[in-house]
Amino acid sequence: MYKYFDHSSTTPVNDDVLSTYYKILQKYFVNSESIYPRGLEVNNLMEKSREKTASLLNVLPKEVIFTSSGSEANNLAIKGTALKRKGFGKHIISTTVEHSSVERSIKWLVDYLGFEVTYLPVNQNGVIEIEDLEKAIRKDTILVSIMYVNNESGAIMPIDKIKSIVRKYPNCYLHCDCVQAIGKIDFDLTDIDMASISAHKIYGLKGSGVLIKKQHVQIAEIISGGQQEFHLRAGTSNAAVNIVFYKTLRKALEAYKDHKSKIKKNHDYLLEELKKLDKIVINSPEDGCYGVINFSCLTITSQVMMNALSLKGFEVSAVSTCDSQKAISRVISQMYKDENRLKGTIRVSISHLHSFEDIKGLKEAIKECIEDYG
Amino acid sequence: MYKYFDHSSTTPVNDDVLSTYYKILQKYFVNSESIYPRGLEVNNLMEKSREKTASLLNVLPKEVIFTSSGSEANNLAIKGTALKRKGFGKHIISTTVEHSSVERSIKWLVDYLGFEVTYLPVNQNGVIEIEDLEKAIRKDTILVSIMYVNNESGAIMPIDKIKSIVRKYPNCYLHCDCVQAIGKIDFDLTDIDMASISAHKIYGLKGSGVLIKKQHVQIAEIISGGQQEFHLRAGTSNAAVNIVFYKTLRKALEAYKDHKSKIKKNHDYLLEELKKLDKIVINSPEDGCYGVINFSCLTITSQVMMNALSLKGFEVSAVSTCDSQKAISRVISQMYKDENRLKGTIRVSISHLHSFEDIKGLKEAIKECIEDYG
Repeated sequence: MYKYFDHSSTTPVNDDVLSTYYKILQKYFVNSESIYPRGLEVNNLMEKSREKTASLLNVLPKEVIFTSSGSEANNLAIKGTALKRKGFGKHIISTTVEHSSVERSIKWLVDYLGFEVTYLPVNQNGVIEIEDLEKAIRKDTILVSIMYVNNESGAIMPIDKIKSIVRKYPNCYLHCDCVQAIGKIDFDLTDIDMASISAHKIYGLKGSGVLIKKQHVQIAEIISGGQQEFHLRAGTSNAAVNIVFYKTLRKALEAYKDHKSKIKKNHDYLLEELKKLDKIVINSPEDGCYGVINFSCLTITSQVMMNALSLKGFEVSAVSTCDSQKAISRVISQMYKDENRLKGTIRVSISHLHSFEDIKGLKEAIKECIEDYG
Repeated sequence: MYKYFDHSSTTPVNDDVLSTYYKILQKYFVNSESIYPRGLEVNNLMEKSREKTASLLNVLPKEVIFTSSGSEANNLAIKGTALKRKGFGKHIISTTVEHSSVERSIKWLVDYLGFEVTYLPVNQNGVIEIEDLEKAIRKDTILVSIMYVNNESGAIMPIDKIKSIVRKYPNCYLHCDCVQAIGKIDFDLTDIDMASISAHKIYGLKGSGVLIKKQHVQIAEIISGGQQEFHLRAGTSNAAVNIVFYKTLRKALEAYKDHKSKIKKNHDYLLEELKKLDKIVINSPEDGCYGVINFSCLTITSQVMMNALSLKGFEVSAVSTCDSQKAISRVISQMYKDENRLKGTIRVSISHLHSFEDIKGLKEAIKECIEDYG
């Protein structure tokens, strides 16, 4: 039985991606910027990956910037915009439920560069009220950074409505952290100026991310140096990692297409079963992303539930792993104020790798934990 | 015959490092920040690597910050200091021959944060005159960033003298880009506040670097987000890469110890043979680092020589690979002004992997190229 239920934190590497990566690592080591034939060969493979990645996402190859992670992509989009575009204004809009790499990038701009930020609140469905964005946006707003899918609640932000508002402000860019959207929902990068992607969330390698930056968008680099990545991300290219990014993305999009009905079925089953349990409340919105179920047991703290499940071999999480040293979920605390609910949050991630039996196993384990500790 | 002579650009991955890495990748994928047992296990392995790395470098574990590259480590040291310490002053000292990741990080601070920089010139030996540093340093100098070993000339900077001057200014940190020093010379990190290391220059993986940051040193992060790396480098840890960093460093230091006399012999032989050739001038200083020979053929441009050698299977470079789109070496142009010399620079890197036969083969190939094109 497959008992790992923490795919929103990270995913096992796809076998095909891993074996291809290892072959590339063994065969190619020369610097992709070297101008002798073996360097050109590596560079060519990397550019092919960039082209095919672009094609999958319906963007241009020069709009694909390889980074070392989704967090780095978020930093590059936000800080890069602020540094390059501060002449147009120093106001940024974001939400109270962003990933820490967005939240802390903006705080960095406030602390070190004197930026002003408006954080939009979320309702109990985990999404912003679009009127709040309309009220907050100003002529000196240079960036709106709002995630596509929330990493803890699974809430899907109203990106189409957000786009239509931001488009009225030609000096303002829209950045979407798409790390939890890719391979989980239908998405469309049209009218999104910048989008962040992480490979290890879609059955790829750690140390691998992409920032989609549309060609009209002007940003500064945050890692300065050589000419790599259109002068926007210095450092010897991690060519083997970048070469397998395309395969990683293609496989993830195929898996989504092939298995979405299975994931929906498993998701709906677990959700309904959890709702039947007396002491459990659901934190994820009804219309959230399939594959993420956040709930609380009102009589068991997150830590006790996680440990109890862990003893049975089930791996789930309480908060975003990048915030795992924090006791209470920053995201869920924006949706609900009840202390018992906040003390007991558990996030379950359902993957295409899970069978129906796996889901039933988890449900039984949760039930037993409540009987034992609740 | 082993014909790759560009180890200052990048190195083949050590077989033992590569196979260990692959085993770790296959076995561990869970997030090292996850608090269930498999997460703790990965974290434990990573922290062991940090401890042993620290021990090899004679620093504390909490002084080892894993990054995605040497370039990122340089950026973190320089920008991180500037952001955190600008209250003490906005003056930085560096040299005219630093790696692009240092040069451009400082330019970024000048362009975006209004910093002032003094670039110390180098003499024909490729090193600064220590009096120039004495004259340049001021009470508002918060950072001196000078590389240990130059990546193009092999010149070794007078780090001990530099240390003794910087130590007189308690608000000023000393950062050394040690990317080309580790595994090539005896080095000592005492009294160096920050030091950058790259794995792929020492027979390790790309996408892997370390910043040594002594515990008294206060810097801001440049990639903001989660709690990883003492809050100084966010993003899901690239645990497998960080775990093999220790083995990479240990193997490189062992190889240096075991093979330095062989490298010296091969270096001296090639240097003497090159000096015998009429049209060749040596750019590397006499007292530079063994393993790097920079020379020019006064009648053949770099491009023609590189291509001619490449046709014979020999891979060498003309300038730093991170500057490979530039026609003329920024470093050598600071040491010499003669146009023919600057048009013809070639850098040869000699590794412990080279036999004496390999060196003789390269020498013959260079001779033939001069006969054919000179």
